[in-house]
Amino acid sequence: MSTERTEIEKLGEFGLIDHLTQNFETQNSSTVLAIGDDAAVIDHFGKQSVITTDLLVEGVHFDLMYTPLKHLGYKSVIVNLSDIYAMNAQPTQIVIGLAFSNRFSLEALEEFYLGVQIACERYNVDLIGGDTSTSQKGLIISVTAIGEVAPDKFIKRSTAESGDLICVSGDLGGAFLGLTLMEREKNIFIENPQIQPNLENEDYIVGRLLKPDARKDIIEYLDEHKIVPTAMMDISDGLSSDVLHLCKQSELGCRIYEDKIPINEASRAAAFKFGLDPTVCALNGGEDYELLFTMKQADYDKITLQEEISVIGYMCDKEEGAKLITKGKNLFDITAQGWNAFAK
Amino acid sequence: MSTERTEIEKLGEFGLIDHLTQNFETQNSSTVLAIGDDAAVIDHFGKQSVITTDLLVEGVHFDLMYTPLKHLGYKSVIVNLSDIYAMNAQPTQIVIGLAFSNRFSLEALEEFYLGVQIACERYNVDLIGGDTSTSQKGLIISVTAIGEVAPDKFIKRSTAESGDLICVSGDLGGAFLGLTLMEREKNIFIENPQIQPNLENEDYIVGRLLKPDARKDIIEYLDEHKIVPTAMMDISDGLSSDVLHLCKQSELGCRIYEDKIPINEASRAAAFKFGLDPTVCALNGGEDYELLFTMKQADYDKITLQEEISVIGYMCDKEEGAKLITKGKNLFDITAQGWNAFAK
Repeated sequence: MSTERTEIEKLGEFGLIDHLTQNFETQNSSTVLAIGDDAAVIDHFGKQSVITTDLLVEGVHFDLMYTPLKHLGYKSVIVNLSDIYAMNAQPTQIVIGLAFSNRFSLEALEEFYLGVQIACERYNVDLIGGDTSTSQKGLIISVTAIGEVAPDKFIKRSTAESGDLICVSGDLGGAFLGLTLMEREKNIFIENPQIQPNLENEDYIVGRLLKPDARKDIIEYLDEHKIVPTAMMDISDGLSSDVLHLCKQSELGCRIYEDKIPINEASRAAAFKFGLDPTVCALNGGEDYELLFTMKQADYDKITLQEEISVIGYMCDKEEGAKLITKGKNLFDITAQGWNAFAK
Repeated sequence: MSTERTEIEKLGEFGLIDHLTQNFETQNSSTVLAIGDDAAVIDHFGKQSVITTDLLVEGVHFDLMYTPLKHLGYKSVIVNLSDIYAMNAQPTQIVIGLAFSNRFSLEALEEFYLGVQIACERYNVDLIGGDTSTSQKGLIISVTAIGEVAPDKFIKRSTAESGDLICVSGDLGGAFLGLTLMEREKNIFIENPQIQPNLENEDYIVGRLLKPDARKDIIEYLDEHKIVPTAMMDISDGLSSDVLHLCKQSELGCRIYEDKIPINEASRAAAFKFGLDPTVCALNGGEDYELLFTMKQADYDKITLQEEISVIGYMCDKEEGAKLITKGKNLFDITAQGWNAFAK
């Protein structure tokens, strides 16, 4: 971050929005009118619009002690794009609301918007509106993302069927281990500010926490290979919690094989270092933003060569419950111990 | 508000959203998929979508000491619908993000959502998604509204022309006077809790603050009478500030006649009681959510019988500046002294 500090009052609200968004260029032909009026205008003729919103609150969803503002801006966009992809849609536009206390300078907000811009450019999304204001305490970020999908091609959580294969993209637990590492280093630093954080060899899990991807590539792969998931969602709260959503909304049970859950070697090593069970991290750790979907068994051959998709189990009847089959062939009930904002 | 208190942890995030939105019914055929998935889906075939977002922060935008939660929920929706109408569009859907500290009970949130529901029903809008979480301090509300408009029939701020008449709907300054009254009564109460607030005969200004309307009726009137405004916006920051936006974005100047600015008798009486100039309240007080628009002089005859529309001046060349013509025929520069979130 720059060492200059410009107070925000100098610009006023409208000058501020103009300033922060001056380098954003429109990329979607569906963006008819962007920032600068009462509302933005979008043309989605012949497609359906998909909308999602997320509110991120400092001290609840992020800690600025170890989250650079550029990464926070980037990630605030990604978590919403992930929800759009999870509908089998393409994100096209976002609007951002930002409230901040007077401890934030113009340079700090510029860093945040730089991260927003990187995410927008990477995923071909237009920032088309927003709202900024002061807050009494901390930083509050609201992002609403809009996407488009061919009519009725969106994929819900409620349409899985018994016998369908359960698949996840990428690997799980990394973001939670990155968070565990950052919290540990933060506590060491608070107790002894002379000690510099030790993040050596932990690039992978730190990256999973601070610069997640939204799995546009998986949606494209499924489309290219004519695989239509029977149900889909993204993993934001942890595999346990999210697979239970699929079960509940589809009125089914499931079997997940512990040894099929994809965990990166770096995550596994970090888990052992912290004395944690890698499977528990994958099941209960959130924020991986991978896709969780179900598909017909007949489509299995189409994904065997795709290393970024793992089949981890199958859907079964509701009466059979939602269970994890451990490496030792024991059956355990899957319970939602995912990140719960209200349990804190 | 009910005197019961149910702690929110009991429900969890997803149970909470289900509970709070259980009585909301879908009213728009364009709403394909509402609450309960990663995102909502909207069909706007043959129309353009209009999007706006607002972030409302306790202690900055509202004071719960004199804002009942039901009114706050209602008003949070209205301020966004007002932006959609100001584009000459019809609002169709909203999504809401809510973050709250543990001082809020389930009953308090129910009150808030009851207000949201009243606004949705009154304006035929569907609540289709949302996000709830905890906050470290206070209540934070994010509302994004979506509307639809026939292709290219939206009206911007930048398209007024020299000679166009400047019109406003309803009357101005009332919300600011309501706020002034509430702040005065709050301070009296803080100094002396035995004294009950004296809101006698102040229904009008209190109503303007706590239950504003979005001017759907004006948009309908203009449409019925084939009046196409040349530029339009809503008045949220005060007439001075907002007419300067029209001037800046249309690259024009303006003349506003003080004696043409519509001020309700009750607002005028309240202003005199508080020792304030009613014109200054109308110019600089915000939150009236009336429409400010420009139209061709040829359309003048079409509005003479419509008491809810006042012609207050005209647009002129940029070089002539933006000026107020007082009752005494003096000319003053109009300056933006509207509510500025950053000047506080």
